Amino acid sequence: MDTIKKYISGNKDRFLAELFDLLRIPSVSAKEENRKDMLRAADFLRNSLLEAGAGKAEVYQTEGHPVLYGEKIISPDLPTVMIYGHYDVQPAEPYELWKTAPFEPVIKEGKIWGRGADDDKGQLFMHIKAFELMNNTGTLACNVKFIIEGEEEIGSVNLEKFCSDHKAMLASDVILISDTTMISEDVPSITSGLRGLSYMQVEVTGPDRDLHSGLYGGAVVNPCNVLCDLIASLKDKDNRITIPGFYDDVLECTPEEREAMSKRPFSKDSFMKSVGVNKLDGETGYTDLERIGIRPTLDVNGIWGGYTGEGAKTILPSKAFAKISMRLVPNQNAEKVAGLFSKYFLSIAPSSVTVKAEFLHGGEAYISPLHTAEYNAASLAVEETFNKKPVPVRSGGSIPIVSTFEKVLGVKSILLGFGLESDAIHSPNENYPVSNFLKGIETIPLFFRHYKNQKIR
Amino acid sequence: MDTIKKYISGNKDRFLAELFDLLRIPSVSAKEENRKDMLRAADFLRNSLLEAGAGKAEVYQTEGHPVLYGEKIISPDLPTVMIYGHYDVQPAEPYELWKTAPFEPVIKEGKIWGRGADDDKGQLFMHIKAFELMNNTGTLACNVKFIIEGEEEIGSVNLEKFCSDHKAMLASDVILISDTTMISEDVPSITSGLRGLSYMQVEVTGPDRDLHSGLYGGAVVNPCNVLCDLIASLKDKDNRITIPGFYDDVLECTPEEREAMSKRPFSKDSFMKSVGVNKLDGETGYTDLERIGIRPTLDVNGIWGGYTGEGAKTILPSKAFAKISMRLVPNQNAEKVAGLFSKYFLSIAPSSVTVKAEFLHGGEAYISPLHTAEYNAASLAVEETFNKKPVPVRSGGSIPIVSTFEKVLGVKSILLGFGLESDAIHSPNENYPVSNFLKGIETIPLFFRHYKNQKIR
Repeated sequence: MDTIKKYISGNKDRFLAELFDLLRIPSVSAKEENRKDMLRAADFLRNSLLEAGAGKAEVYQTEGHPVLYGEKIISPDLPTVMIYGHYDVQPAEPYELWKTAPFEPVIKEGKIWGRGADDDKGQLFMHIKAFELMNNTGTLACNVKFIIEGEEEIGSVNLEKFCSDHKAMLASDVILISDTTMISEDVPSITSGLRGLSYMQVEVTGPDRDLHSGLYGGAVVNPCNVLCDLIASLKDKDNRITIPGFYDDVLECTPEEREAMSKRPFSKDSFMKSVGVNKLDGETGYTDLERIGIRPTLDVNGIWGGYTGEGAKTILPSKAFAKISMRLVPNQNAEKVAGLFSKYFLSIAPSSVTVKAEFLHGGEAYISPLHTAEYNAASLAVEETFNKKPVPVRSGGSIPIVSTFEKVLGVKSILLGFGLESDAIHSPNENYPVSNFLKGIETIPLFFRHYKNQKIR
Repeated sequence: MDTIKKYISGNKDRFLAELFDLLRIPSVSAKEENRKDMLRAADFLRNSLLEAGAGKAEVYQTEGHPVLYGEKIISPDLPTVMIYGHYDVQPAEPYELWKTAPFEPVIKEGKIWGRGADDDKGQLFMHIKAFELMNNTGTLACNVKFIIEGEEEIGSVNLEKFCSDHKAMLASDVILISDTTMISEDVPSITSGLRGLSYMQVEVTGPDRDLHSGLYGGAVVNPCNVLCDLIASLKDKDNRITIPGFYDDVLECTPEEREAMSKRPFSKDSFMKSVGVNKLDGETGYTDLERIGIRPTLDVNGIWGGYTGEGAKTILPSKAFAKISMRLVPNQNAEKVAGLFSKYFLSIAPSSVTVKAEFLHGGEAYISPLHTAEYNAASLAVEETFNKKPVPVRSGGSIPIVSTFEKVLGVKSILLGFGLESDAIHSPNENYPVSNFLKGIETIPLFFRHYKNQKIR
């Protein structure tokens, strides 16, 4: 214990300086213009791994952004922990709402501010520094592998193939991931479930060009109006999704499970205050926590069409677009849901427009079993660092690759996240408390120690 | 007649070169960045008026873009014709759909291509060149005034005050406007009515920042989904507008009027083909021509919110916006309709969002009586140039200033338009046939001659 705290205390300024160098690279996977930054970020992390003590670290090209693999194998008799993380970040738009520049990280009020500070550069970098710590203090308790991708924010499109192609190299006993939140430092938690995702883009075309709304309006179909009609038709008055078959595969939670979940501390008022709304809204018949934890959803992530500039332009637009994603729960299949969506969306469109629906990416939901070696190890490690036994939480977010790992590599993941809900990931002013960054570096070596003890009794 | 044709034939290349200089000025009234271009365009036309023979021409500042006034008074015993036109143009977006640069006019296939080629620089410039012709050939038959504004495309916001402030200066017998279309060179027509307009911008706010759609989706309201619900609620299954009181003031046309209008030549197939749709859609119980001529409408002109870039961003947006305009028919009041819209739009919004609705601009519908001196003069002039008696047509477009002129100055307008529906005004690839530009210059002096004869018998 003392060894860990001492090492962190003696090196924390350097840890932060190195993280800042990583945060300065605008590795936005969704944007073609950042392609070179993706390579820079992968290369930066390759060097970090080697400097931290990896026996090897290599950048693999894919059809999209590169995957970084690194390892340190100390003994065939020890269990192997594979760390997963991602070096890509969400786009920073809208820039004007950032109080500091998204790719010029700063520390203010005890927090690191910048895109990726939490998701996932900050959380990933904790593992590299914990790995360095274990190497330099002679306390590494397990073999370690790293698999770090650059496409998590765009659906990990090439990682499944990479896993299939490198099954032997990626063999491990457990996959350790820090890409989620805990409730608070006072109420530490471990994520025991994730929602899946089906992300669609739709396009509605009316006339073959923008028309004068006076000369044509009233007789020629307006694709913006039609898109609104179609989106409005996707939910009923109870906020239930109307796509036929959408709920067919949903595994409903038992009353006992729902009762157990309701024990999680939750203040509706502070939740509303934290996002600036005065009323919550959602599917009839479920609590707020159930709505974000165990129920599937449908949200418009973006919509656009026609004239969106300053002032007035009296056009009848040619096209309208929307990005629409559905969060899925266990047993729902992302591609099947995408198919149901497309079929229904096209079926309800009037014949005066042309509609396209494209499946951008997706992944299945995941449930992490409790009482496993990895869950116990994580629970003991967190309890040691935070002085409280963590509670298991079903999160609303998605990390599609977790179910892919299980399917392709046959390995379970443990979601040991140190983010907070106030970290504003995916939003302007993303941040990550310095204390959580350092607590993470402190907790990870404890996980390794407990995991070894759990596996080798 | 010969004098007119000879003058045009001897000067047409110069006419076009001068028009091109005007078209090169990107005088987009909706954009702050073009403020200087507005002044340049007003100044250019001031010089054009003086060179064409105006006794005076002056640029007047307003709270928005300047108004240009010019005149040539030849005798208190002659009638006075006031020409109205506008030097501002619609924004050129989306640029990528233009086959030639919008502000670099070219002639191809017998047409002038560029923003403003028709609306209204091309049509306005015909009047300046016809004025030059009459001056230089000693055939000016009436006193002439010019009132040329720079805010027609944004609702002529400062022209009403300008008219009130300069009533004596603007005194005239008739206002002549070329800012509309005719059916075709084979079926010449005169616009006998215009629709009014009420243009709104709405804003729906949910959470106070973009949120992670996984962590919050399902419990926190999505303003994009809500905006779609609200817009979808504005029309019923018969495409009738659901805003309470919206139709209260509509003067329904009599069966006789509708019968007379149905005589206008109209090919549904070529209309559909011209805009690239395979089906027309509109209010139940009315024909296509009625839907764009005598019925009010509601169209989304633009919609935006959330992430609209490349790829996928899994956010629950903070805000969603739309520009929504309603075309009005005689007896509907633009501000009253805006008020009805706002009241209804706010009333149907769920309490979990904040909604704003702003009235951007508007104007009343207009009907031009037939059998007046000005209508007869226009009809005779067009018949002389096109060899066919023109048919009167109720157009779907709006020129709000026409009803303002009647209200403030007490003067009727005559809408002598030479545009074609294929001119793609307000759209990419706006164009104007050279032959219509020249025919216009030929027709205008004939209007002056006939108008004088009609007034002084």
